[in-house]
Amino acid sequence: MKFDTAPSRGMKDLLPAEVELRDRATATILATYRRYGFRRIETPALENLRLLQGSGGGENEKLIYKVLKRGAKLDAATAREDDLADLGLRFDLTVPLARYYAHHRAELPDPFKAIQIGPVWRAERPQKGRFRQFTQCDIDILGVVSEIAEVELILATAEALIELGLERPRIRLNDRRILSAMATFCGVEPSRHGDFFITLDKLDKIGREGVERELRDAGHDAGAISKLFAMVLSADGESSSSLQRLAQVVPATSDAVESLRMILRAVGQEAGGRFTVGFDASLVRGMGYYTGPIFEAAYGDYGGSIAGGGRYDRMVGRLLGQDVPACGFSIGFERVVSILEGKSDQVRSERDRVAFLFEPADPLAEVAAEAGRLRGREGTVSLTLKRKNLARQLDDLAGEGFGSYAVFRPGQSPEVKTLVRRTESAGGADA
Amino acid sequence: MKFDTAPSRGMKDLLPAEVELRDRATATILATYRRYGFRRIETPALENLRLLQGSGGGENEKLIYKVLKRGAKLDAATAREDDLADLGLRFDLTVPLARYYAHHRAELPDPFKAIQIGPVWRAERPQKGRFRQFTQCDIDILGVVSEIAEVELILATAEALIELGLERPRIRLNDRRILSAMATFCGVEPSRHGDFFITLDKLDKIGREGVERELRDAGHDAGAISKLFAMVLSADGESSSSLQRLAQVVPATSDAVESLRMILRAVGQEAGGRFTVGFDASLVRGMGYYTGPIFEAAYGDYGGSIAGGGRYDRMVGRLLGQDVPACGFSIGFERVVSILEGKSDQVRSERDRVAFLFEPADPLAEVAAEAGRLRGREGTVSLTLKRKNLARQLDDLAGEGFGSYAVFRPGQSPEVKTLVRRTESAGGADA
Repeated sequence: MKFDTAPSRGMKDLLPAEVELRDRATATILATYRRYGFRRIETPALENLRLLQGSGGGENEKLIYKVLKRGAKLDAATAREDDLADLGLRFDLTVPLARYYAHHRAELPDPFKAIQIGPVWRAERPQKGRFRQFTQCDIDILGVVSEIAEVELILATAEALIELGLERPRIRLNDRRILSAMATFCGVEPSRHGDFFITLDKLDKIGREGVERELRDAGHDAGAISKLFAMVLSADGESSSSLQRLAQVVPATSDAVESLRMILRAVGQEAGGRFTVGFDASLVRGMGYYTGPIFEAAYGDYGGSIAGGGRYDRMVGRLLGQDVPACGFSIGFERVVSILEGKSDQVRSERDRVAFLFEPADPLAEVAAEAGRLRGREGTVSLTLKRKNLARQLDDLAGEGFGSYAVFRPGQSPEVKTLVRRTESAGGADA
Repeated sequence: MKFDTAPSRGMKDLLPAEVELRDRATATILATYRRYGFRRIETPALENLRLLQGSGGGENEKLIYKVLKRGAKLDAATAREDDLADLGLRFDLTVPLARYYAHHRAELPDPFKAIQIGPVWRAERPQKGRFRQFTQCDIDILGVVSEIAEVELILATAEALIELGLERPRIRLNDRRILSAMATFCGVEPSRHGDFFITLDKLDKIGREGVERELRDAGHDAGAISKLFAMVLSADGESSSSLQRLAQVVPATSDAVESLRMILRAVGQEAGGRFTVGFDASLVRGMGYYTGPIFEAAYGDYGGSIAGGGRYDRMVGRLLGQDVPACGFSIGFERVVSILEGKSDQVRSERDRVAFLFEPADPLAEVAAEAGRLRGREGTVSLTLKRKNLARQLDDLAGEGFGSYAVFRPGQSPEVKTLVRRTESAGGADA
């Protein structure tokens, strides 16, 4: 019998070299975050559907994988999806964090500085480079009103990116309160701010004309639009002078402007040329739950952001009945890994591995004993049956990333020889 | 609004200290396995239901979490569970490994030595200490007929357990071919071997009388039963002399006996008093897919096994249409972690962490700069707002595992002082 052995649609298997790159990236990120006092937590993959739905997750709520209720009566007349399912796979790590914090607050340090790294699931239309299961990597600080929370999140994330080899990341900063004030000042009703920001968020993709058209089509006033553009674009210099100008033009932003100034000063002073940080009035971010500063990181000429976050002071309140100040920064782990895969210095093979070759007739106990001694000296030793064509096998082993090999000889100490790859054929097993 | 914030039924949130213990255990296991040449792979959590069902997973197949098909027509008349679901959460790591190997064989080294560590899901009746999401940690060798595969799996697993601090684990060994020959010799029809073994597997739990009764109730011949018991119990000395005796009494076991002898000799010689290994004719293991040697590890007076595995040469064949020799050893990660949690030396707090205290009025930029310098010297520095009752706060910080603290003073280099815990109140935040 033959079977379809591909992973399920939109999902991905990871080969050893991919896992090794991801494990190194994870270790680097975790080590950096731990230096800042963050501690890792874990929540289960399955959450009650009621938590996930109506969590302010926007579009993502439509993409939830729902789990069939066990023993549910498949009653014809009444069967709606929600009668059949009571659990769902999490679509992000922020909604579960809010639940976790609300539930465990008495057992957690105050402030609580959490690291989360793990898979999330979204039933998106499969497309190149995007998968239905992917890894998110978040840090969050709960219980801190002060802008020091934003400062720590930004410094820790910038440092993690630099440690990963993503030199000179660019951090952009804005504030939802400024965006709201700008929108109000330009005559957009508060109830329509959400849609307005989502369109504004497309400036990178569809340009000024595209955004203007979309806003006009949505019925926004042409005068308000051009007023806002004058403001956004004049302030889009990633500088604090544009922030100052904005504060003069738009009233009711002084708190937010002061917040951003403090963050820019504290972060900027620590940047020391290793990364840049600046105000960007066109930064919007597409989520509904932000309440204050928002930020993103970009790298090189890689389009789009590689990390994003902001303050969401009212999310925990929905669960706890009492607001808790909160803010987070999330590294786009899959994007970062795909950038690293493109950097040749990251395709590091594990050259310290020794292949120890033996023949079927060799005495197993002696082979195992010799391998143990070799492992004590050389670190990583992998036992492999010797093939007839040794030259070909050695070439394959070099292709698999082995740095050296030794051949078992009864009663003799094995000699470790360096492996040099002769051909450029694809590595791995015999074709 | 108040919300039920508990994790979904049968699931578990992990607190920082629990994650830290698990992360250390994972790192220890992975480092050991990597020295033996194993490499980590990952498969998605969701697999096609068709793969999971009929995989020889036995009881576990009844416990699959099924995912609602997106846009499935909830047609009253025809709605059966399998019309509504096409994906399921994996219930183990072996079935996905077989699919992965069948799909990627051309890209993988030969032999292929895989590590897998990750969550699996089973919709079991919730009970104390057992959860519906739990972590498995497997190593498998695919493509090796020789008993060197069993030898490597056992040595690597024993070493990992010892490195974890589980001193002197006891490895028990048997072979499905011996069990089959014994059963046949005692007059049990081959078609009934499966049920017969499952009952025999209960010897630890229900004793000899219980097993005899269950076998008689199932219609097995009383003479055959007592013959077998004489054999199993006389051979149950975990010694190779009992293996020899068995080979003399039961015909058609010579290959299996020779396999076990080779494995016992090679493994035993490497044990060097650090662990024990022996033959145990009463070892059965409750899975259907084993074809040769089977093994388990036990520790101290902890009941049940902490690791189990064996050879399953025909599982990949079901998917590939061509058998591939395979064998694996799985550490019961949750059991191991619960043992480690009970060992006081494992409850290691991260004493190298420094809490850096500041006040709301302190200039953020200076605070951040000072924290950065401190981090450069001390490693882990976590910023924390100073409370009014400093003595109480310092006690809390000690309870959270901070080893020292420093207080921000404008224009001065902060002095790092050791934290000593005064009270034995529960750590964490203010109650």
